Amino acid sequence: MTIAERWLLPDGIEEILPPEAARIEALRRTLLDEYRVWGYELLQPPLAEYLESLLTGVGHDLDLLTFKITDQLSGRLMGISTDRTQQVARMDAHSMPKEGVARYCYCGEVLHTKPIHLLSSRSPMQVGAELYGYAGLDSEIEIASLMLTSLDKAGLKDITLDLGHVGIYQALVEETSLSSDEKNELFSLLRSRAVPELNQWLNNASLPEYQRNWFIQLPKMAGSVTQLSSWKALFEKAPKQLSEAFDSLVTVANALNERFPQVNVHADLAELRDYNYHTGLVFSAFVSGFGQAIARGGRYDATGSVFGRSRPATGFSSDLKVLAQLTGSDWSEQKAILAPVGSSAELFKAIAKLRSQGERVIQQLPEQAQIEELGCDRALVEVDGQWTVQLISQNRHN
Amino acid sequence: MTIAERWLLPDGIEEILPPEAARIEALRRTLLDEYRVWGYELLQPPLAEYLESLLTGVGHDLDLLTFKITDQLSGRLMGISTDRTQQVARMDAHSMPKEGVARYCYCGEVLHTKPIHLLSSRSPMQVGAELYGYAGLDSEIEIASLMLTSLDKAGLKDITLDLGHVGIYQALVEETSLSSDEKNELFSLLRSRAVPELNQWLNNASLPEYQRNWFIQLPKMAGSVTQLSSWKALFEKAPKQLSEAFDSLVTVANALNERFPQVNVHADLAELRDYNYHTGLVFSAFVSGFGQAIARGGRYDATGSVFGRSRPATGFSSDLKVLAQLTGSDWSEQKAILAPVGSSAELFKAIAKLRSQGERVIQQLPEQAQIEELGCDRALVEVDGQWTVQLISQNRHN
Repeated sequence: MTIAERWLLPDGIEEILPPEAARIEALRRTLLDEYRVWGYELLQPPLAEYLESLLTGVGHDLDLLTFKITDQLSGRLMGISTDRTQQVARMDAHSMPKEGVARYCYCGEVLHTKPIHLLSSRSPMQVGAELYGYAGLDSEIEIASLMLTSLDKAGLKDITLDLGHVGIYQALVEETSLSSDEKNELFSLLRSRAVPELNQWLNNASLPEYQRNWFIQLPKMAGSVTQLSSWKALFEKAPKQLSEAFDSLVTVANALNERFPQVNVHADLAELRDYNYHTGLVFSAFVSGFGQAIARGGRYDATGSVFGRSRPATGFSSDLKVLAQLTGSDWSEQKAILAPVGSSAELFKAIAKLRSQGERVIQQLPEQAQIEELGCDRALVEVDGQWTVQLISQNRHN
Repeated sequence: MTIAERWLLPDGIEEILPPEAARIEALRRTLLDEYRVWGYELLQPPLAEYLESLLTGVGHDLDLLTFKITDQLSGRLMGISTDRTQQVARMDAHSMPKEGVARYCYCGEVLHTKPIHLLSSRSPMQVGAELYGYAGLDSEIEIASLMLTSLDKAGLKDITLDLGHVGIYQALVEETSLSSDEKNELFSLLRSRAVPELNQWLNNASLPEYQRNWFIQLPKMAGSVTQLSSWKALFEKAPKQLSEAFDSLVTVANALNERFPQVNVHADLAELRDYNYHTGLVFSAFVSGFGQAIARGGRYDATGSVFGRSRPATGFSSDLKVLAQLTGSDWSEQKAILAPVGSSAELFKAIAKLRSQGERVIQQLPEQAQIEELGCDRALVEVDGQWTVQLISQNRHN
């Protein structure tokens, strides 16, 4: 083991250095403060839980993303937190069993065995909010509005919001006579938007022509929300749930368009989700120049049912590290005051007073010439027995 | 697997509910803000690293505390972060190789395989600060002062600070002809303060009488710092490093006594540390009614040497969850304004304006009677076409 090997970090697992860490902290505070004024209560799910708590009822994707460790106290398997949604569902079901609407938010690092996308972090700092206990579209509208407000508060411009509805795919696939395995294959092909493979698969599937056409159309239905009504007409003999799904897309798109005229609201009917817990409307936010969604949300009713409490739920989340990376880097730490060497209580008090006013004060250590390095622009000096702050003149430390 | 089993959290791994999570967040901000005004730069070590990075050069204790996972990308073993000190040493050595003094701080959850003490958390939220690049006692004084200031800012009273010096034990044990295994046994016995077993072990050890007396005396030397000079005289034929260690204890004790007259500064010469990285002065803070130290710090020079850069270093850390638990629970969330149902942009703007002023505004969802439950004391109502905030009268929702 060479020294250089000890330096290396695993791919996709980052350390955050100054001043970037301070910038992320500032952004964290901005977002959590915003969630607070919207009435969302902060909670902190644990960093590890028993595997059954983390993975019951969720998709295989999430299982593959989860690092497993053995609990030495119980001998049972635990997983490192990979995604907060299931954890919040458990907490809503068991730890906070109040009736009525509940609003939660959270922020913290999670760990993934593999990057979700080619360049994704394996230790994203997941920040998000969830609204439990309300099944109506006002819940989607509130959550999507909070997501868009978060991106605005983070300083992100030119947002595109893609709206989809997993209920459309579900309603269509339920009408078919496909086996469970075939449904999974179809879901995979649609989710990965592998159109040639999808069409080939559909040609070989035992489906009536009109049903085959449903799934050939679906990936093409991405564009302006004004097209939604014309798309709806293309689904011949479609089940009636489809119509409801289209109506909710229109309602939510209109409300968001009105509230956020600066955001481009698009529809994307082939937007399906990993993790398998979404049940209704889904939405993803994009900025130009970044290939992946920067925030995602939607409805995932009944995730709490495996914990004994089935509730309607909507929510969104984002990676704070990605948001920070996209929002410029013009952060610089304020200048500081250099205090002289000395351990006396009197000097310590003079320094403490400045610090209590929000000033950064760095006390010089004996024999350390570090004024410029630390970026001090002023100095605390004793003049006639009084501690006074003076500007450090440019030529003093040439 | 029953539903109840899915609810259970592993022993010692906590979730944090509202309003406790908000209180911990407030305390986190108070402490990080304090470190900032002292000139300590925030950094964030990764949640997992290769095992060699985490464990090279540290004691067996830390190895036993570390959860191991396999990195699926490299096939190498990683450890979940257990203690930040070694991670910061790597970052100081490699990621921030500037010359001169460097000040760092951090805050985040770590994970332990076993509780360190009977009732300890296995997922403490470690918060701390470190000063690199200065070997003199001003470094210990600054770090201990910052630690005591942290506890004061957290609202903790009646602090006792125990000062020790691992150099005293090290100087004494170096003078003996004990084998490496015997030194480890002696260290263990002293660290666990198992006096009868220690004395029995010493009786069987092949040590000259005066050396045996050193280690019999050591555990008794806990009390007022004024006794330090009389204790020094009890070490017959002691090596000269012992004298230097005593002198530094006196210097630091005097400086802290002068700066923090409200803190009880004690000496405790048998205070030895786990993890094996401390090299000089060590200090621990206690409050009455809590059996374990609430903050610990000291000198640990040369932890960066395994990463190719040996630097003097001092630092301290604490568990934010413990600090929050000890500092009362009279936290309550401010009252909120209830906004009416509706998805119009105009209402949304009126709400956004109140939120930008720091008001918590909760928008009612259709058919949800939740006024009291959410603790709203005011309501946003439309009067003559204007949005106005009105007090909710007590009898309105009887």
